[in-house]
Amino acid sequence: MAYNDDKINMVHGAGGEVMQQMISEIVLSNVSKTSVNGGIGLESLDDSATIPFDDEHVVVTTIDAHTIQPLFFPGGDIGRISAAGTLNDISVMGVKPLSLSNAMVISEGFPREDLDQIMKSMDETCQEVGAAIITGDTKVIDSDKLDSMIITTAGIGIGRKDEIVRDSGLEVGDKIIITGSVGDHGMAIMSKREGFGYETELKSDVAPVWPMVEAAKKVGKITAMKDPTRGGIANALNEMANKANVGMRLYEEFIPVKPEVEAVSDMLGIDPFEVANEGKVVMGVTADTAEDVLDAIQKTKYGKDAQIIGEVTEGKRVIMETLIGGERLIEPPIADPVPRVC
Amino acid sequence: MAYNDDKINMVHGAGGEVMQQMISEIVLSNVSKTSVNGGIGLESLDDSATIPFDDEHVVVTTIDAHTIQPLFFPGGDIGRISAAGTLNDISVMGVKPLSLSNAMVISEGFPREDLDQIMKSMDETCQEVGAAIITGDTKVIDSDKLDSMIITTAGIGIGRKDEIVRDSGLEVGDKIIITGSVGDHGMAIMSKREGFGYETELKSDVAPVWPMVEAAKKVGKITAMKDPTRGGIANALNEMANKANVGMRLYEEFIPVKPEVEAVSDMLGIDPFEVANEGKVVMGVTADTAEDVLDAIQKTKYGKDAQIIGEVTEGKRVIMETLIGGERLIEPPIADPVPRVC
Ligand SMILES: Nc1ncnc2c1ncn2[C@@H]1O[C@H](COP(=O)(O)OP(=O)(O)OP(=O)(O)O)[C@@H](O)[C@H]1O
Ligand SMILES: Nc1ncnc2c1ncn2[C@@H]1O[C@H](COP(=O)(O)OP(=O)(O)OP(=O)(O)O)[C@@H](O)[C@H]1O
Ligand SMILES: [Mg+2]
Ligand SMILES: [Mg+2]
Ligand SMILES: [Mg+2]
Ligand SMILES: [Mg+2]
Ligand SMILES: [Mg+2]
Ligand SMILES: [Mg+2]
Repeated sequence: MAYNDDKINMVHGAGGEVMQQMISEIVLSNVSKTSVNGGIGLESLDDSATIPFDDEHVVVTTIDAHTIQPLFFPGGDIGRISAAGTLNDISVMGVKPLSLSNAMVISEGFPREDLDQIMKSMDETCQEVGAAIITGDTKVIDSDKLDSMIITTAGIGIGRKDEIVRDSGLEVGDKIIITGSVGDHGMAIMSKREGFGYETELKSDVAPVWPMVEAAKKVGKITAMKDPTRGGIANALNEMANKANVGMRLYEEFIPVKPEVEAVSDMLGIDPFEVANEGKVVMGVTADTAEDVLDAIQKTKYGKDAQIIGEVTEGKRVIMETLIGGERLIEPPIADPVPRVC
Repeated sequence: MAYNDDKINMVHGAGGEVMQQMISEIVLSNVSKTSVNGGIGLESLDDSATIPFDDEHVVVTTIDAHTIQPLFFPGGDIGRISAAGTLNDISVMGVKPLSLSNAMVISEGFPREDLDQIMKSMDETCQEVGAAIITGDTKVIDSDKLDSMIITTAGIGIGRKDEIVRDSGLEVGDKIIITGSVGDHGMAIMSKREGFGYETELKSDVAPVWPMVEAAKKVGKITAMKDPTRGGIANALNEMANKANVGMRLYEEFIPVKPEVEAVSDMLGIDPFEVANEGKVVMGVTADTAEDVLDAIQKTKYGKDAQIIGEVTEGKRVIMETLIGGERLIEPPIADPVPRVC
């Protein structure tokens, strides 16, 4: 298989099936201890891991490296995405993010002014959920060895064991909710790079999702949750279905896609379901609480366009009823089609 | 001032005074919330931060990016340093490290075999202290945008509030202990790069320090602790003195420096006190427990060459009595003289 040779290639870092295979083969197979005291560990491949603290409480933690290009893009910058990305992986475990750790690797010659702007943006994003930036690290390397900047953030939340939401908990009959339009982030990045002139309308959705998760938790029963980042909703929904050994039936008419996202997608031949979102959540919710959850999410700042997009079924396949009445199989992408998207 | 212009340069990431100034000016000044619930936060600039869990316990966390070149060096590789570096920043807070989070940014074309070796090495290092690798992230970027690989690790420990050791707790009269010879890591990297032929004897000291800290804690009272990484012992000792508003009197005859480190240092005109160590601890210990602590450390695997190197004094200066009977002021370095040392 082409992707399975002796060198790492772009696809290995692109959030799809090939990356997952590589993580199993090189990472998981070499790690002898993958969890602490029965917490959620590496083998779960969930958005975050947990460390049990006492019988009732767990520490939730996660990490993400951010290599996005360009650093400043419509709707955000690397500072905002570095904060939101990690805060969101904690949030989709059902727990409020408390802290961010900030490791920056900067290319020599990087403008101080940009760094200042990036820090401000990271801070503002943390403020939206009340998270603190408590520790960090700074390295500088020659400009011919790194093109701009990489920011890796780790995050921590603390919660009750019984409020943790896995990405594997879907049950047949649950409703699937998406908290807003899909593909905005990936298509905003592509559009900015290609200079299509859509930059004024097309903005990244990068934002902290905790307020939506909090609102949803209060009124309903969430059975599974993920942030559909690299690989988009196609990746997240398939992973959730696969882990729970269930299928899904989705309805295209309910999946929100902005017209400008549609336009750029068509132009580039990229499926908006397969590109990264940076301020969205897909969740499974019990059928009886789904409407209440939807209402609650729609009342939050970033959740106005939330929709119930389908339900969990028997089987193994994620199937979408199309607008024209046909059926389309939503497959897990090999890789996210947009390089350096986050 | 030359280092204070409008662009980031190598010195800003080199662990010395200029880096500290930049962190104050660009990082600290932009962060509105620097700690969680009264825990140790960003403004302390300690090795790790803490999040109080309940009245008695805290979560300890830290992060470090690793950009070391070459990736494989005498005595270790980027996998070992990425694990040890972070586990050690937790350990010098007085707490056992429990988990590692592993974010890898890999250059396209990177050999799978090397990645496999690096993961094995990271795992082995974690095994030495019983830490688990519980979560991670993988990104790949074009080979003309990054030269090899950057690994950022974050770590977590959980401890009792009353066992936390700050880097600011020195008191006049305390003894200063170093757990072994200084300069090994930085000089091994330099020697490998320059190809001096010392590679067979000169090895990095990269190792997890937790077993030494644990042994010391059992028998003595540690008042302050740091791992003397970038900027070496000159940086760590000055930072500890400065934070506690005390001075130090050190004795050159007791500071262990390997002859081959001395040789390479002389050849390159680099002060071994100013280069990174990756498996050492400097600690302040009450005078009455110092001998017991020294004995205990010397019985551990990496602590055979531990020494009491001096004591804490009034004043503000770190002064060393030289072998020939003179005095030398040990100043905080502007920057670590070895680029990409960790
Ligand atoms: N290098 C690695 N070491 C250890 N675990 C890894 C590594 N890379 C990925 N993982 C694990 O694989 C799973 C999938 O990682 P992935 O990065 O896709 O998740 P995510 O952070 O939710 O998504 P994204 O990075 O797109 O935001 C996670 O559980 C993660 O912990
Ligand atoms: N980009 C950053 N954002 C937030 N805090 C930072 C950043 N860079 C450094 N810090 C903080 O500054 C202090 C000094 O950092 P430094 O990296 O020198 O510590 P260290 O990890 O103990 O040393 P080393 O990195 O050499 O192993 C730490 O408290 C760290 O949290
Ligand atoms: Mg996620
Ligand atoms: Mg993520
Ligand atoms: Mg550091
Ligand atoms: Mg340290
Ligand atoms: Mg460190
Ligand atoms: Mg990730």
